[in-house]
Amino acid sequence: MAELVRFGVSLDKKLLEWFDRLIHSQNYSNRSEAIRDLIRENLVKEEWIKGEEVAGVITLVYNHHQREVVNILTDIQHDFHHLIISTQHIHLDHDNCLEVVVVKGKPKEVEKLAYQMKSTRGVKYSTLNMATTGKGLV
Amino acid sequence: MAELVRFGVSLDKKLLEWFDRLIHSQNYSNRSEAIRDLIRENLVKEEWIKGEEVAGVITLVYNHHQREVVNILTDIQHDFHHLIISTQHIHLDHDNCLEVVVVKGKPKEVEKLAYQMKSTRGVKYSTLNMATTGKGLV
Amino acid sequence: MAELVRFGVSLDKKLLEWFDRLIHSQNYSNRSEAIRDLIRENLVKEEWIKGEEVAGVITLVYNHHQREVVNILTDIQHDFHHLIISTQHIHLDHDNCLEVVVVKGKPKEVEKLAYQMKSTRGVKYSTLNMATTGKGLV
Amino acid sequence: MAELVRFGVSLDKKLLEWFDRLIHSQNYSNRSEAIRDLIRENLVKEEWIKGEEVAGVITLVYNHHQREVVNILTDIQHDFHHLIISTQHIHLDHDNCLEVVVVKGKPKEVEKLAYQMKSTRGVKYSTLNMATTGKGLV
Repeated sequence: MAELVRFGVSLDKKLLEWFDRLIHSQNYSNRSEAIRDLIRENLVKEEWIKGEEVAGVITLVYNHHQREVVNILTDIQHDFHHLIISTQHIHLDHDNCLEVVVVKGKPKEVEKLAYQMKSTRGVKYSTLNMATTGKGLV
Repeated sequence: MAELVRFGVSLDKKLLEWFDRLIHSQNYSNRSEAIRDLIRENLVKEEWIKGEEVAGVITLVYNHHQREVVNILTDIQHDFHHLIISTQHIHLDHDNCLEVVVVKGKPKEVEKLAYQMKSTRGVKYSTLNMATTGKGLV
Repeated sequence: MAELVRFGVSLDKKLLEWFDRLIHSQNYSNRSEAIRDLIRENLVKEEWIKGEEVAGVITLVYNHHQREVVNILTDIQHDFHHLIISTQHIHLDHDNCLEVVVVKGKPKEVEKLAYQMKSTRGVKYSTLNMATTGKGLV
Repeated sequence: MAELVRFGVSLDKKLLEWFDRLIHSQNYSNRSEAIRDLIRENLVKEEWIKGEEVAGVITLVYNHHQREVVNILTDIQHDFHHLIISTQHIHLDHDNCLEVVVVKGKPKEVEKLAYQMKSTRGVKYSTLNMATTGKGLV
Protein backbone atom coordinates (compact mmCIF):
# COMPACT_ATOMS: atom_id res chain seq x y z
CA MET A 1 0.00 0.00 0.00
CA ALA A 2 0.97 3.57 -0.59
CA GLU A 3 2.47 5.27 2.43
CA LEU A 4 1.22 8.79 3.00
CA VAL A 5 3.55 11.44 4.31
CA ARG A 6 2.91 15.08 5.08
CA PHE A 7 4.98 18.18 4.66
CA GLY A 8 4.35 21.86 5.26
CA VAL A 9 4.39 24.64 2.69
CA SER A 10 4.85 28.21 3.81
CA LEU A 11 3.71 31.00 1.58
CA ASP A 12 2.25 34.45 1.55
CA LYS A 13 -1.33 34.65 2.79
CA LYS A 14 -2.52 36.49 -0.32
CA LEU A 15 -0.87 33.94 -2.63
CA LEU A 16 -2.71 31.19 -0.80
CA GLU A 17 -6.03 33.01 -1.17
CA TRP A 18 -5.49 33.29 -4.93
CA PHE A 19 -4.50 29.66 -5.14
CA ASP A 20 -7.62 28.63 -3.24
CA ARG A 21 -9.78 30.60 -5.64
CA LEU A 22 -8.04 29.09 -8.66
CA ILE A 23 -8.29 25.47 -7.56
CA HIS A 24 -11.89 26.00 -6.52
CA SER A 25 -12.66 27.11 -10.08
CA GLN A 26 -10.92 23.94 -11.26
CA ASN A 27 -13.08 21.86 -8.97
CA TYR A 28 -10.45 20.64 -6.52
CA SER A 29 -11.82 19.80 -3.10
CA ASN A 30 -8.53 20.36 -1.29
CA ARG A 31 -5.09 21.82 -1.75
CA SER A 32 -3.22 18.54 -1.43
CA GLU A 33 -4.98 17.07 -4.43
CA ALA A 34 -4.25 20.17 -6.52
CA ILE A 35 -0.59 20.17 -5.52
CA ARG A 36 -0.22 16.45 -6.17
CA ASP A 37 -1.51 17.10 -9.70
CA LEU A 38 0.99 19.91 -10.28
CA ILE A 39 3.78 17.60 -9.11
CA ARG A 40 2.64 14.67 -11.21
CA GLU A 41 2.40 16.76 -14.37
CA ASN A 42 6.03 17.69 -14.00
CA LEU A 43 6.98 14.05 -13.46
CA VAL A 44 5.21 12.94 -16.64
CA LYS A 45 7.14 15.57 -18.63
CA GLU A 46 10.32 14.09 -17.13
CA GLU A 47 9.34 10.56 -18.19
CA TRP A 48 9.08 11.73 -21.81
CA ILE A 49 12.44 13.50 -21.64
CA LYS A 50 14.18 10.49 -20.07
CA GLY A 51 13.01 8.33 -22.93
CA GLU A 52 11.96 5.20 -21.12
CA GLU A 53 8.54 3.63 -21.33
CA VAL A 54 5.61 6.01 -21.65
CA ALA A 55 1.99 5.83 -22.67
CA GLY A 56 0.49 8.24 -25.15
CA VAL A 57 -2.62 9.02 -27.12
CA ILE A 58 -2.53 9.74 -30.84
CA THR A 59 -5.61 11.50 -32.19
CA LEU A 60 -6.40 11.52 -35.91
CA VAL A 61 -9.19 13.30 -37.77
CA TYR A 62 -9.61 12.28 -41.38
CA ASN A 63 -12.11 12.00 -44.19
CA HIS A 64 -12.61 8.31 -44.88
CA HIS A 65 -13.77 9.13 -48.41
CA GLN A 66 -10.27 10.28 -49.20
CA ARG A 67 -8.83 7.57 -51.40
CA GLU A 68 -6.69 4.99 -49.62
CA VAL A 69 -6.39 6.81 -46.31
CA VAL A 70 -8.07 4.03 -44.31
CA ASN A 71 -5.85 1.36 -45.86
CA ILE A 72 -2.68 3.32 -45.31
CA LEU A 73 -3.49 4.09 -41.67
CA THR A 74 -4.29 0.44 -41.08
CA ASP A 75 -1.00 -0.63 -42.66
CA ILE A 76 0.99 1.82 -40.56
CA GLN A 77 -0.72 0.67 -37.38
CA HIS A 78 0.14 -2.93 -38.19
CA ASP A 79 3.77 -2.00 -38.81
CA PHE A 80 3.84 -0.54 -35.30
CA HIS A 81 1.52 -3.09 -33.68
CA HIS A 82 4.00 -3.69 -30.85
CA LEU A 83 3.44 -0.09 -29.72
CA ILE A 84 -0.33 0.04 -30.06
CA ILE A 85 -2.60 -1.07 -27.25
CA SER A 86 -5.91 -0.27 -28.88
CA THR A 87 -7.69 1.96 -31.33
CA GLN A 88 -11.07 3.59 -31.04
CA HIS A 89 -12.88 4.84 -34.09
CA ILE A 90 -15.63 7.48 -34.03
CA HIS A 91 -17.86 8.48 -36.93
CA LEU A 92 -18.09 12.25 -36.45
CA ASP A 93 -20.36 12.74 -39.42
CA HIS A 94 -20.91 11.40 -42.92
CA ASP A 95 -17.33 12.25 -43.94
CA ASN A 96 -15.20 12.73 -40.85
CA CYS A 97 -13.67 10.09 -38.59
CA LEU A 98 -11.88 10.65 -35.33
CA GLU A 99 -9.53 7.87 -34.35
CA VAL A 100 -7.81 7.55 -31.00
CA VAL A 101 -4.78 5.28 -30.84
CA VAL A 102 -3.47 4.43 -27.38
CA VAL A 103 0.22 3.61 -27.44
CA LYS A 104 2.90 2.41 -25.04
CA GLY A 105 6.63 2.38 -25.71
CA LYS A 106 9.70 4.54 -25.95
CA PRO A 107 8.97 8.21 -26.76
CA LYS A 108 11.16 8.13 -29.90
CA GLU A 109 9.27 5.20 -31.41
CA VAL A 110 5.92 6.59 -30.42
CA GLU A 111 6.81 9.86 -32.13
CA LYS A 112 7.85 8.02 -35.27
CA LEU A 113 4.48 6.31 -35.45
CA ALA A 114 2.69 9.61 -34.82
CA TYR A 115 4.62 11.34 -37.61
CA GLN A 116 3.88 8.56 -40.09
CA MET A 117 0.16 8.81 -39.51
CA LYS A 118 0.10 12.60 -39.38
CA SER A 119 1.89 12.92 -42.72
CA THR A 120 -0.56 10.57 -44.46
CA ARG A 121 -2.52 12.31 -47.19
CA GLY A 122 -6.13 12.69 -46.12
CA VAL A 123 -5.35 13.07 -42.42
CA LYS A 124 -6.64 16.54 -41.58
CA TYR A 125 -5.41 16.81 -38.06
CA SER A 126 -3.29 14.75 -35.74
CA THR A 127 -1.72 15.19 -32.34
CA LEU A 128 0.37 13.09 -30.02
CA ASN A 129 -0.61 13.55 -26.43
CA MET A 130 1.79 12.68 -23.63
CA ALA A 131 0.42 10.37 -20.98
CA THR A 132 1.97 7.93 -18.56
CA THR A 133 1.93 4.21 -17.82
CA GLY A 134 1.17 5.25 -14.27
CA LYS A 135 3.84 2.89 -12.93
CA GLY A 136 6.15 5.65 -11.82
CA LEU A 137 3.34 7.76 -10.48
CA VAL A 138 1.60 7.30 -7.19
CA MET B 1 -16.28 17.62 -54.07
CA ALA B 2 -13.33 19.60 -52.84
CA GLU B 3 -11.96 22.06 -55.37
CA LEU B 4 -8.18 22.21 -55.52
CA VAL B 5 -6.41 25.50 -56.09
CA ARG B 6 -2.74 26.29 -56.33
CA PHE B 7 -0.68 29.23 -55.20
CA GLY B 8 3.01 30.02 -55.26
CA VAL B 9 5.27 30.59 -52.27
CA SER B 10 8.52 32.44 -52.74
CA LEU B 11 11.25 31.98 -50.22
CA ASP B 12 14.98 31.82 -49.79
CA LYS B 13 16.60 28.77 -51.37
CA LYS B 14 18.36 27.81 -48.14
CA LEU B 15 15.17 28.07 -46.11
CA LEU B 16 13.50 25.72 -48.56
CA GLU B 17 16.37 23.22 -48.28
CA TRP B 18 15.99 23.19 -44.48
CA PHE B 19 12.25 22.82 -44.76
CA ASP B 20 12.66 19.89 -47.14
CA ARG B 21 15.01 18.17 -44.70
CA LEU B 22 12.62 18.77 -41.78
CA ILE B 23 9.50 17.47 -43.51
CA HIS B 24 11.42 14.49 -44.83
CA SER B 25 12.33 13.58 -41.24
CA GLN B 26 8.63 13.90 -40.42
CA ASN B 27 7.76 11.55 -43.24
CA TYR B 28 5.95 13.96 -45.56
CA SER B 29 6.04 12.96 -49.20
CA ASN B 30 5.56 16.48 -50.52
CA ARG B 31 5.61 20.11 -49.42
CA SER B 32 1.93 20.78 -50.07
CA GLU B 33 0.89 18.13 -47.57
CA ALA B 34 3.26 19.54 -44.94
CA ILE B 35 2.03 23.09 -45.51
CA ARG B 36 -1.60 22.04 -45.43
CA ASP B 37 -0.91 20.50 -42.00
CA LEU B 38 0.69 23.69 -40.70
CA ILE B 39 -2.31 25.67 -41.91
CA ARG B 40 -4.84 23.26 -40.45
CA GLU B 41 -3.16 23.27 -37.04
CA ASN B 42 -3.58 27.01 -36.87
CA LEU B 43 -7.22 26.72 -37.87
CA VAL B 44 -7.94 24.20 -35.12
CA LYS B 45 -6.44 26.57 -32.53
CA GLU B 46 -8.79 29.25 -33.88
CA GLU B 47 -11.81 26.95 -33.52
CA TRP B 48 -11.03 26.55 -29.82
CA ILE B 49 -10.59 30.30 -29.33
CA LYS B 50 -13.81 31.14 -31.16
CA GLY B 51 -15.71 28.86 -28.82
CA GLU B 52 -18.02 27.09 -31.22
CA GLU B 53 -18.27 23.34 -31.64
CA VAL B 54 -15.04 21.40 -31.26
CA ALA B 55 -14.01 17.81 -30.69
CA GLY B 56 -11.52 16.86 -28.03
CA VAL B 57 -9.88 13.94 -26.31
CA ILE B 58 -9.65 13.68 -22.53
CA THR B 59 -7.07 11.22 -21.27
CA LEU B 60 -7.15 9.90 -17.72
CA VAL B 61 -4.70 7.65 -15.91
CA TYR B 62 -5.89 6.32 -12.57
CA ASN B 63 -5.56 3.48 -10.14
CA HIS B 64 -8.86 1.65 -10.11
CA HIS B 65 -8.07 0.29 -6.64
CA GLN B 66 -8.35 3.79 -5.30
CA ARG B 67 -11.61 3.84 -3.42
CA GLU B 68 -14.59 5.21 -5.31
CA VAL B 69 -12.65 6.64 -8.26
CA VAL B 70 -14.41 4.45 -10.84
CA ASN B 71 -17.85 5.36 -9.50
CA ILE B 72 -17.13 9.06 -9.37
CA LEU B 73 -15.73 9.14 -12.92
CA THR B 74 -18.76 7.24 -14.17
CA ASP B 75 -21.10 9.67 -12.43
CA ILE B 76 -19.33 12.69 -13.89
CA GLN B 77 -19.43 11.21 -17.37
CA HIS B 78 -23.15 10.66 -17.05
CA ASP B 79 -23.68 14.23 -15.90
CA PHE B 80 -21.97 15.35 -19.10
CA HIS B 81 -23.30 12.58 -21.35
CA HIS B 82 -24.43 15.13 -23.96
CA LEU B 83 -20.77 16.01 -24.54
CA ILE B 84 -19.34 12.50 -24.60
CA ILE B 85 -19.24 10.47 -27.79
CA SER B 86 -17.48 7.41 -26.43
CA THR B 87 -15.05 6.16 -23.85
CA GLN B 88 -12.27 3.64 -24.26
CA HIS B 89 -10.78 1.91 -21.26
CA ILE B 90 -7.36 0.26 -21.21
CA HIS B 91 -5.92 -1.91 -18.45
CA LEU B 92 -2.32 -0.76 -18.36
CA ASP B 93 -1.36 -3.16 -15.60
CA HIS B 94 -2.79 -4.68 -12.45
CA ASP B 95 -3.39 -1.24 -10.92
CA ASN B 96 -3.40 1.38 -13.64
CA CYS B 97 -6.14 2.25 -16.10
CA LEU B 98 -5.92 4.63 -19.01
CA GLU B 99 -9.22 6.01 -20.14
CA VAL B 100 -9.78 8.02 -23.30
CA VAL B 101 -12.97 10.06 -23.49
CA VAL B 102 -13.84 11.53 -26.87
CA VAL B 103 -15.95 14.66 -26.54
CA LYS B 104 -17.77 17.10 -28.80
CA GLY B 105 -19.22 20.46 -27.75
CA LYS B 106 -18.36 24.00 -26.82
CA PRO B 107 -14.79 24.45 -25.53
CA LYS B 108 -15.99 25.96 -22.21
CA GLU B 109 -18.20 22.96 -21.41
CA VAL B 110 -15.57 20.48 -22.53
CA GLU B 111 -13.06 22.17 -20.23
CA LYS B 112 -15.48 22.02 -17.32
CA LEU B 113 -15.87 18.26 -17.79
CA ALA B 114 -12.10 17.84 -18.08
CA TYR B 115 -11.49 19.78 -14.86
CA GLN B 116 -14.07 17.74 -12.94
CA MET B 117 -12.43 14.47 -13.89
CA LYS B 118 -8.89 15.75 -13.42
CA SER B 119 -9.61 16.98 -9.92
CA THR B 120 -11.08 13.64 -8.84
CA ARG B 121 -9.07 12.00 -6.10
CA GLY B 122 -7.30 8.94 -7.49
CA VAL B 123 -6.81 10.37 -10.96
CA LYS B 124 -3.05 10.50 -11.37
CA TYR B 125 -2.84 12.30 -14.65
CA SER B 126 -5.26 13.92 -17.01
CA THR B 127 -5.06 16.07 -20.11
CA LEU B 128 -7.51 17.64 -22.48
CA ASN B 129 -6.34 17.44 -26.05
CA MET B 130 -7.70 19.82 -28.68
CA ALA B 131 -9.06 18.19 -31.82
CA THR B 132 -11.63 19.17 -34.39
CA THR B 133 -14.96 17.96 -35.70
CA GLY B 134 -13.35 18.20 -39.12
CA LYS B 135 -16.35 20.09 -40.50
CA GLY B 136 -14.51 23.34 -40.91
CA LEU B 137 -11.39 21.67 -42.20
CA VAL B 138 -10.82 20.43 -45.70
CA MET C 1 4.53 43.43 4.71
CA ALA C 2 3.69 40.04 3.36
CA GLU C 3 2.10 37.76 5.92
CA LEU C 4 3.33 34.18 5.79
CA VAL C 5 0.96 31.29 6.40
CA ARG C 6 1.59 27.60 6.40
CA PHE C 7 -0.46 24.65 5.26
CA GLY C 8 0.13 20.92 5.09
CA VAL C 9 0.23 18.76 1.98
CA SER C 10 -0.26 15.04 2.30
CA LEU C 11 0.98 12.79 -0.45
CA ASP C 12 2.45 9.42 -1.16
CA LYS C 13 5.99 8.95 0.15
CA LYS C 14 7.28 7.82 -3.23
CA LEU C 15 5.72 10.78 -5.01
CA LEU C 16 7.48 13.09 -2.57
CA GLU C 17 10.82 11.37 -3.20
CA TRP C 18 10.42 11.91 -6.95
CA PHE C 19 9.42 15.50 -6.42
CA ASP C 20 12.46 16.08 -4.22
CA ARG C 21 14.73 14.66 -6.91
CA LEU C 22 13.09 16.80 -9.62
CA ILE C 23 13.27 20.09 -7.75
CA HIS C 24 16.83 19.35 -6.71
CA SER C 25 17.73 19.01 -10.40
CA GLN C 26 16.02 22.37 -10.94
CA ASN C 27 18.10 23.91 -8.19
CA TYR C 28 15.37 24.58 -5.63
CA SER C 29 16.62 24.67 -2.06
CA ASN C 30 13.28 23.74 -0.53
CA ARG C 31 9.86 22.43 -1.43
CA SER C 32 7.95 25.57 -0.47
CA GLU C 33 9.83 27.64 -3.03
CA ALA C 34 9.18 25.05 -5.75
CA ILE C 35 5.49 24.86 -4.90
CA ARG C 36 5.12 28.63 -4.76
CA ASP C 37 6.53 28.74 -8.30
CA LEU C 38 4.06 26.13 -9.55
CA ILE C 39 1.23 28.13 -8.01
CA ARG C 40 2.42 31.45 -9.40
CA GLU C 41 2.78 30.07 -12.92
CA ASN C 42 -0.87 29.10 -12.87
CA LEU C 43 -1.85 32.53 -11.61
CA VAL C 44 0.02 34.29 -14.42
CA LYS C 45 -1.83 32.15 -16.98
CA GLU C 46 -5.06 33.28 -15.32
CA GLU C 47 -4.06 36.96 -15.56
CA TRP C 48 -3.68 36.57 -19.33
CA ILE C 49 -7.03 34.82 -19.66
CA LYS C 50 -8.83 37.42 -17.55
CA GLY C 51 -7.57 40.13 -19.85
CA GLU C 52 -6.60 42.80 -17.36
CA GLU C 53 -3.18 44.38 -17.13
CA VAL C 54 -0.23 42.11 -17.85
CA ALA C 55 3.43 42.49 -18.68
CA GLY C 56 5.01 40.66 -21.57
CA VAL C 57 8.19 40.29 -23.55
CA ILE C 58 8.22 40.38 -27.35
CA THR C 59 11.36 38.94 -28.92
CA LEU C 60 12.28 39.69 -32.53
CA VAL C 61 15.14 38.33 -34.63
CA TYR C 62 15.68 40.10 -37.94
CA ASN C 63 18.26 40.96 -40.52
CA HIS C 64 18.76 44.70 -40.39
CA HIS C 65 20.04 44.66 -43.98
CA GLN C 66 16.59 43.71 -45.12
CA ARG C 67 15.22 46.83 -46.75
CA GLU C 68 13.02 48.98 -44.54
CA VAL C 69 12.61 46.50 -41.69
CA VAL C 70 14.20 48.79 -39.09
CA ASN C 71 12.03 51.73 -40.13
CA ILE C 72 8.84 49.72 -40.12
CA LEU C 73 9.53 48.19 -36.70
CA THR C 74 10.29 51.63 -35.32
CA ASP C 75 7.06 53.02 -36.76
CA ILE C 76 5.01 50.18 -35.29
CA GLN C 77 6.60 50.64 -31.88
CA HIS C 78 5.74 54.32 -31.95
CA ASP C 79 2.14 53.55 -32.87
CA PHE C 80 1.95 51.39 -29.76
CA HIS C 81 4.21 53.53 -27.56
CA HIS C 82 1.63 53.53 -24.75
CA LEU C 83 2.17 49.76 -24.38
CA ILE C 84 5.95 49.71 -24.61
CA ILE C 85 8.12 50.17 -21.55
CA SER C 86 11.49 49.75 -23.20
CA THR C 87 13.35 48.08 -26.01
CA GLN C 88 16.74 46.40 -25.94
CA HIS C 89 18.66 45.83 -29.13
CA ILE C 90 21.42 43.24 -29.54
CA HIS C 91 23.76 42.85 -32.49
CA LEU C 92 23.98 39.07 -32.81
CA ASP C 93 26.36 39.20 -35.75
CA HIS C 94 27.01 41.26 -38.87
CA ASP C 95 23.49 40.63 -40.16
CA ASN C 96 21.25 39.54 -37.33
CA CYS C 97 19.63 41.63 -34.61
CA LEU C 98 17.73 40.41 -31.60
CA GLU C 99 15.34 42.92 -30.14
CA VAL C 100 13.49 42.53 -26.86
CA VAL C 101 10.46 44.73 -26.32
CA VAL C 102 9.02 44.83 -22.82
CA VAL C 103 5.33 45.68 -22.82
CA LYS C 104 2.58 46.35 -20.32
CA GLY C 105 -1.12 46.53 -21.09
CA LYS C 106 -4.19 44.46 -21.88
CA PRO C 107 -3.42 41.06 -23.42
CA LYS C 108 -5.49 41.79 -26.55
CA GLU C 109 -3.56 44.98 -27.33
CA VAL C 110 -0.23 43.39 -26.55
CA GLU C 111 -1.07 40.55 -28.94
CA LYS C 112 -2.02 43.04 -31.67
CA LEU C 113 1.35 44.73 -31.37
CA ALA C 114 3.13 41.37 -31.37
CA TYR C 115 1.31 40.26 -34.54
CA GLN C 116 2.12 43.50 -36.35
CA MET C 117 5.83 43.13 -35.70
CA LYS C 118 5.88 39.39 -36.38
CA SER C 119 4.22 39.79 -39.77
CA THR C 120 6.71 42.44 -40.89
CA ARG C 121 8.77 41.31 -43.86
CA GLY C 122 12.35 40.68 -42.78
CA VAL C 123 11.46 39.55 -39.25
CA LYS C 124 12.75 35.97 -39.12
CA TYR C 125 11.38 34.96 -35.78
CA SER C 126 9.18 36.50 -33.16
CA THR C 127 7.49 35.36 -29.98
CA LEU C 128 5.33 36.94 -27.36
CA ASN C 129 6.18 35.73 -23.91
CA MET C 130 3.69 35.99 -21.06
CA ALA C 131 4.95 37.69 -17.93
CA THR C 132 3.32 39.59 -15.11
CA THR C 133 3.32 43.05 -13.61
CA GLY C 134 3.93 41.29 -10.34
CA LYS C 135 1.21 43.32 -8.63
CA GLY C 136 -1.12 40.41 -8.18
CA LEU C 137 1.65 38.04 -7.23
CA VAL C 138 3.28 37.80 -3.86
CA MET D 1 22.81 37.59 -51.19
CA ALA D 2 19.84 35.38 -50.51
CA GLU D 3 18.59 33.52 -53.55
CA LEU D 4 14.83 33.41 -53.86
CA VAL D 5 13.09 30.32 -55.20
CA ARG D 6 9.43 29.64 -55.74
CA PHE D 7 7.34 26.52 -55.33
CA GLY D 8 3.67 25.77 -55.70
CA VAL D 9 1.28 24.59 -53.00
CA SER D 10 -1.94 22.89 -53.96
CA LEU D 11 -4.77 22.81 -51.52
CA ASP D 12 -8.51 22.90 -51.19
CA LYS D 13 -10.08 26.21 -52.14
CA LYS D 14 -11.98 26.47 -48.87
CA LEU D 15 -8.85 25.77 -46.82
CA LEU D 16 -7.09 28.57 -48.64
CA GLU D 17 -9.97 30.97 -47.93
CA TRP D 18 -9.75 30.17 -44.22
CA PHE D 19 -6.02 30.58 -44.26
CA ASP D 20 -6.34 33.96 -45.97
CA ARG D 21 -8.78 35.12 -43.32
CA LEU D 22 -6.51 33.90 -40.51
CA ILE D 23 -3.33 35.54 -41.77
CA HIS D 24 -5.21 38.74 -42.52
CA SER D 25 -6.26 38.86 -38.86
CA GLN D 26 -2.60 38.35 -37.98
CA ASN D 27 -1.63 41.25 -40.19
CA TYR D 28 0.28 39.38 -42.91
CA SER D 29 0.31 41.14 -46.25
CA ASN D 30 0.84 37.98 -48.29
CA ARG D 31 0.79 34.21 -48.00
CA SER D 32 4.49 33.70 -48.63
CA GLU D 33 5.42 35.73 -45.57
CA ALA D 34 2.95 33.79 -43.40
CA ILE D 35 4.23 30.45 -44.66
CA ARG D 36 7.85 31.43 -44.22
CA ASP D 37 7.04 32.22 -40.58
CA LEU D 38 5.39 28.82 -40.06
CA ILE D 39 8.46 27.14 -41.55
CA ARG D 40 10.93 29.17 -39.51
CA GLU D 41 9.12 28.46 -36.24
CA ASN D 42 9.56 24.76 -36.85
CA LEU D 43 13.23 25.25 -37.63
CA VAL D 44 13.84 27.13 -34.38
CA LYS D 45 12.27 24.27 -32.42
CA GLU D 46 14.67 21.94 -34.22
CA GLU D 47 17.67 24.09 -33.28
CA TRP D 48 16.77 23.71 -29.61
CA ILE D 49 16.34 19.95 -29.93
CA LYS D 50 19.62 19.51 -31.79
CA GLY D 51 21.43 21.25 -28.95
CA GLU D 52 23.83 23.47 -30.85
CA GLU D 53 24.05 27.23 -30.45
CA VAL D 54 20.80 29.04 -29.78
CA ALA D 55 19.74 32.44 -28.51
CA GLY D 56 17.15 32.82 -25.79
CA VAL D 57 15.44 35.30 -23.56
CA ILE D 58 15.10 34.77 -19.81
CA THR D 59 12.45 36.92 -18.16
CA LEU D 60 12.42 37.45 -14.39
CA VAL D 61 9.89 39.28 -12.24
CA TYR D 62 10.96 39.88 -8.67
CA ASN D 63 10.52 42.16 -5.71
CA HIS D 64 13.82 43.92 -5.19
CA HIS D 65 12.92 44.53 -1.54
CA GLN D 66 13.17 40.81 -0.95
CA ARG D 67 16.37 40.38 1.01
CA GLU D 68 19.40 39.43 -1.07
CA VAL D 69 17.58 38.65 -4.30
CA VAL D 70 19.41 41.32 -6.30
CA ASN D 71 22.81 40.16 -5.05
CA ILE D 72 22.10 36.51 -5.74
CA LEU D 73 20.82 37.17 -9.26
CA THR D 74 23.87 39.29 -9.99
CA ASP D 75 26.17 36.55 -8.71
CA ILE D 76 24.47 33.91 -10.83
CA GLN D 77 24.67 36.09 -13.93
CA HIS D 78 28.38 36.56 -13.38
CA ASP D 79 28.90 32.82 -12.98
CA PHE D 80 27.31 32.39 -16.40
CA HIS D 81 28.69 35.57 -17.97
CA HIS D 82 29.93 33.63 -21.03
CA LEU D 83 26.28 32.89 -21.90
CA ILE D 84 24.84 36.33 -21.26
CA ILE D 85 24.82 38.99 -23.96
CA SER D 86 23.00 41.69 -22.06
CA THR D 87 20.48 42.39 -19.34
CA GLN D 88 17.70 44.94 -19.31
CA HIS D 89 16.12 46.01 -16.07
CA ILE D 90 12.68 47.61 -15.79
CA HIS D 91 11.14 49.17 -12.69
CA LEU D 92 7.53 48.02 -12.96
CA ASP D 93 6.48 49.80 -9.79
CA HIS D 94 7.80 50.62 -6.33
CA ASP D 95 8.37 46.94 -5.55
CA ASN D 96 8.48 44.94 -8.76
CA CYS D 97 11.30 44.60 -11.25
CA LEU D 98 11.19 42.89 -14.60
CA GLU D 99 14.54 41.78 -15.90
CA VAL D 100 15.21 40.46 -19.38
CA VAL D 101 18.42 38.50 -19.88
CA VAL D 102 19.41 37.77 -23.47
CA VAL D 103 21.53 34.65 -23.73
CA LYS D 104 23.43 32.72 -26.38
CA GLY D 105 24.85 29.22 -26.01
CA LYS D 106 23.98 25.56 -25.90
CA PRO D 107 20.39 24.86 -24.84
CA LYS D 108 21.49 22.68 -21.89
CA GLU D 109 23.63 25.45 -20.40
CA VAL D 110 21.04 28.10 -21.05
CA GLU D 111 18.46 25.96 -19.24
CA LYS D 112 20.81 25.52 -16.28
CA LEU D 113 21.18 29.27 -15.94
CA ALA D 114 17.42 29.75 -16.27
CA TYR D 115 16.71 27.18 -13.54
CA GLN D 116 19.21 28.77 -11.17
CA MET D 117 17.59 32.16 -11.46
CA LYS D 118 14.05 30.82 -11.39
CA SER D 119 14.64 28.89 -8.19
CA THR D 120 16.06 31.91 -6.39
CA ARG D 121 13.95 32.96 -3.43
CA GLY D 122 12.22 36.22 -4.20
CA VAL D 123 11.85 35.56 -7.92
CA LYS D 124 8.10 35.55 -8.47
CA TYR D 125 8.02 34.47 -12.05
CA SER D 126 10.52 33.38 -14.63
CA THR D 127 10.43 31.94 -18.11
CA LEU D 128 12.97 30.89 -20.68
CA ASN D 129 11.92 31.83 -24.15
CA MET D 130 13.37 30.06 -27.18
CA ALA D 131 14.83 32.30 -29.84
CA THR D 132 17.49 31.90 -32.48
CA THR D 133 20.86 33.34 -33.41
CA GLY D 134 19.35 33.83 -36.84
CA LYS D 135 22.42 32.28 -38.48
CA GLY D 136 20.62 29.18 -39.63
CA LEU D 137 17.53 31.09 -40.65
CA VAL D 138 17.08 33.04 -43.82
